[in-house]
Amino acid sequence: MIPESSYDPELMAAVTELGSALRELVGVSVATTVGPDELRAAAARAREITAELGAATRERTRLPVLDDPIAFRRVFSPVTGVGSAIAPPLRVRRTEDGGVQAEATLGLQYEGPPGFLHGGMSGLLMDQMLGAAAIAGNRWGMTAHLALDYRGPVPLDTPLVLRARVTEEQGRKTLIGGSIATAAHPDRALVEVSGVFVTPREEKMGDYFGAITDAAGRHAPPGRATDATALHGDGA
Amino acid sequence: MIPESSYDPELMAAVTELGSALRELVGVSVATTVGPDELRAAAARAREITAELGAATRERTRLPVLDDPIAFRRVFSPVTGVGSAIAPPLRVRRTEDGGVQAEATLGLQYEGPPGFLHGGMSGLLMDQMLGAAAIAGNRWGMTAHLALDYRGPVPLDTPLVLRARVTEEQGRKTLIGGSIATAAHPDRALVEVSGVFVTPREEKMGDYFGAITDAAGRHAPPGRATDATALHGDGA
Repeated sequence: MIPESSYDPELMAAVTELGSALRELVGVSVATTVGPDELRAAAARAREITAELGAATRERTRLPVLDDPIAFRRVFSPVTGVGSAIAPPLRVRRTEDGGVQAEATLGLQYEGPPGFLHGGMSGLLMDQMLGAAAIAGNRWGMTAHLALDYRGPVPLDTPLVLRARVTEEQGRKTLIGGSIATAAHPDRALVEVSGVFVTPREEKMGDYFGAITDAAGRHAPPGRATDATALHGDGA
Repeated sequence: MIPESSYDPELMAAVTELGSALRELVGVSVATTVGPDELRAAAARAREITAELGAATRERTRLPVLDDPIAFRRVFSPVTGVGSAIAPPLRVRRTEDGGVQAEATLGLQYEGPPGFLHGGMSGLLMDQMLGAAAIAGNRWGMTAHLALDYRGPVPLDTPLVLRARVTEEQGRKTLIGGSIATAAHPDRALVEVSGVFVTPREEKMGDYFGAITDAAGRHAPPGRATDATALHGDGA
């Protein structure tokens, strides 16, 4: 559960609103059949919005105001970010078996073979699910290995269930398994996934994240989950 | 090489222009520090564009006018689509060794750990690269297995080189290998990838793609590459 006190709710609502609006815009942009003049007019208006939003931007090493790297709250994550037009976004929650689950219905903007989810999108979504499962297990790591077995194509515009769970812990390594299935047949995996996540050694953490700060300028590397993770519905 | 005669160049230019404009908008939306009022105003304007583009949309089983499933031209692909705001987009070209290569510099909207590419984005991009390598080898298939080994984090805002090449053919199966590296050290793989792509049996093709038509309503399943693939720079 996201601690309500730790962010500006008005800013969160506005970031969420813009994320939703842009997500819908991206979705319709791949389905529209309006003509070239209308497309160019839309592009011109989009560039106006870009100019206005670009009037003030953060440094690349400075996390967004709403992010909390300790709570793993990343509002612009390309998978879970409420502010990301790329993300579905997945809303990942803990399950009673100690794993995580998310539901999603994915549209045309994620298409690979006609009518089906791009195979690589399964990789994008499940990498995040496996990482969230590590956090749910009070572990944290970066992806070292990810393997996906595709049992059948994942249909678009169809309610899906994504699951992941830690299967083994080996020192800095966490082994995690997961699956994508339709909500209609949640135990018939269309994609089976396994991964190894590794917590970097201290010296690597310094190499990788030495320059990262929160919005206030304090050093803020990612790290092991605390009680305040960004997972929903865990009763914390 | 895309046959110039096979699409409306004015429509292609307009779709490309809107794709570029929306991609920039998505990029700035994750970096902006303007306040809630400005964010909400931007959302309202984005919804106006959405309404205009939504005035006419295609059926989900009907491919976009600009797509050519035989030439593997997919203008809204989430990886290579010039019209996709999600796609970087990768511009994949053949290499002299019979494989494929693409260059990319990826921004904050694809961030995973602070400063680095989301691990799942490597999966999304490389699934497409491996599929393109199959096509370059005059094969075609859907992903059956994808495995990624992460040797080091992939930096954002840094020129990257993505490569893939068929390593073995086994009937309907195609085995493919690939990598992501920085352009500065193209032979030092940060992510190594292997995959198995399988051409579905005829009866599966009917199950999967029976309803798919081109924009004119003709049945148009994906299939084996012809001379006119969507790969660039192959001299065809």
